[in-house]
Amino acid sequence: MSSAKRKSEARAGSRSHGRDPESSRREILEAAAEIFMEYGYAATSLDHVAERLGATKGRVYHYFPSKADLFLGIHQGAMETLIATVAPLLDGPGTAAERLHAMAMAHARMLMTRSPEQKVAVGKLERHLLRGATARHQHTLQAIVRLRDDYEQLFAEVLSEGMREGDFAVQPPRLATKPVLGALNWLTVWYQPRRGESSEDIEIIARMIADFVVKGLRKGEPLP
Amino acid sequence: MSSAKRKSEARAGSRSHGRDPESSRREILEAAAEIFMEYGYAATSLDHVAERLGATKGRVYHYFPSKADLFLGIHQGAMETLIATVAPLLDGPGTAAERLHAMAMAHARMLMTRSPEQKVAVGKLERHLLRGATARHQHTLQAIVRLRDDYEQLFAEVLSEGMREGDFAVQPPRLATKPVLGALNWLTVWYQPRRGESSEDIEIIARMIADFVVKGLRKGEPLP
Repeated sequence: MSSAKRKSEARAGSRSHGRDPESSRREILEAAAEIFMEYGYAATSLDHVAERLGATKGRVYHYFPSKADLFLGIHQGAMETLIATVAPLLDGPGTAAERLHAMAMAHARMLMTRSPEQKVAVGKLERHLLRGATARHQHTLQAIVRLRDDYEQLFAEVLSEGMREGDFAVQPPRLATKPVLGALNWLTVWYQPRRGESSEDIEIIARMIADFVVKGLRKGEPLP
Repeated sequence: MSSAKRKSEARAGSRSHGRDPESSRREILEAAAEIFMEYGYAATSLDHVAERLGATKGRVYHYFPSKADLFLGIHQGAMETLIATVAPLLDGPGTAAERLHAMAMAHARMLMTRSPEQKVAVGKLERHLLRGATARHQHTLQAIVRLRDDYEQLFAEVLSEGMREGDFAVQPPRLATKPVLGALNWLTVWYQPRRGESSEDIEIIARMIADFVVKGLRKGEPLP
């Protein structure tokens, strides 16, 4: 049995019908994220998600009337979680370089520990999947695009500050965020939790990438 | 009319039935890469590709008996092109840091100028798309996994050399390639050629990312 399946069964077992709608919603989104990652968008159905949860299709349908709603719900939830975690660090103490380091560590940790949702969320928003989207979906889609833009803006701001403080090479901040987010988000492509991976292992990887991005932005010639 | 469509029509117009099989194959792969990028795997068909080329389905089918063959063909071709372009730079003159810089520039340029194939190729190999793959497909899939591994190894080698030369921080080379390739490959997510983009614009972006990755690997503490 896959570890994802084991986790979901544990979840289904502990599920209480009296739980609040917000945690039901989250539970469904988590299961759906796992299935989208395993099978891809086209091969995933509401039945699939219900089965993984040991729930009825009606229960899933109650919260998410369509597969597109599920997909967009995962996206939106994951972006909101990222922003809620990383935004406070922008306003924290220390130099811009120190704050970027903390933001990068937090982002990398989230990608490694909340892997399925984040894999769905940081990838490209595959608009072709939503062709013929309803007005409601279009609305959600626009909200997600704004969230992504807000998130990138957090990084652009700390980069601008680091340029003003004289630590970072001066360049257009939005452009300079691209390799930073690339180095971080590539985790969703290569990182697979290993059996028995400890939180210390995750810290080592997060630190390696955070060090890399902060050094990469420094002033000075790349070649000695 | 989209620029992709214009390009394909130009291609279809200039197409000669007497051309050699290798360029026919390439022409089909290029058109297919554009369509996979626009519509996604599930919504793409051989008919679709034939229509874009102004060719018969039979002509496409002659070279690629199935959609999976097309998808794998794009992958394999793009990886072979990357390796053929980047591998000679590993053996070129200069320090490891200089050679990595040249390799990163070449990789970034390729991703920007050969966008559809490379977008298909550097993304995750979505194995679920190939569920129920035939033995022949499995064979190609294994060849692609080996090519990717070979490609990553080129970067691991130049990183090891840079560590021995004392320019790069000492860390496991394969792990250290991840943020390097992430900063580069993220181009396939965010980069869109703008109207009237010049080769100079492409050079500026390629240099920004190459500078970033070389600096990111340097020895020393990330924070002053």
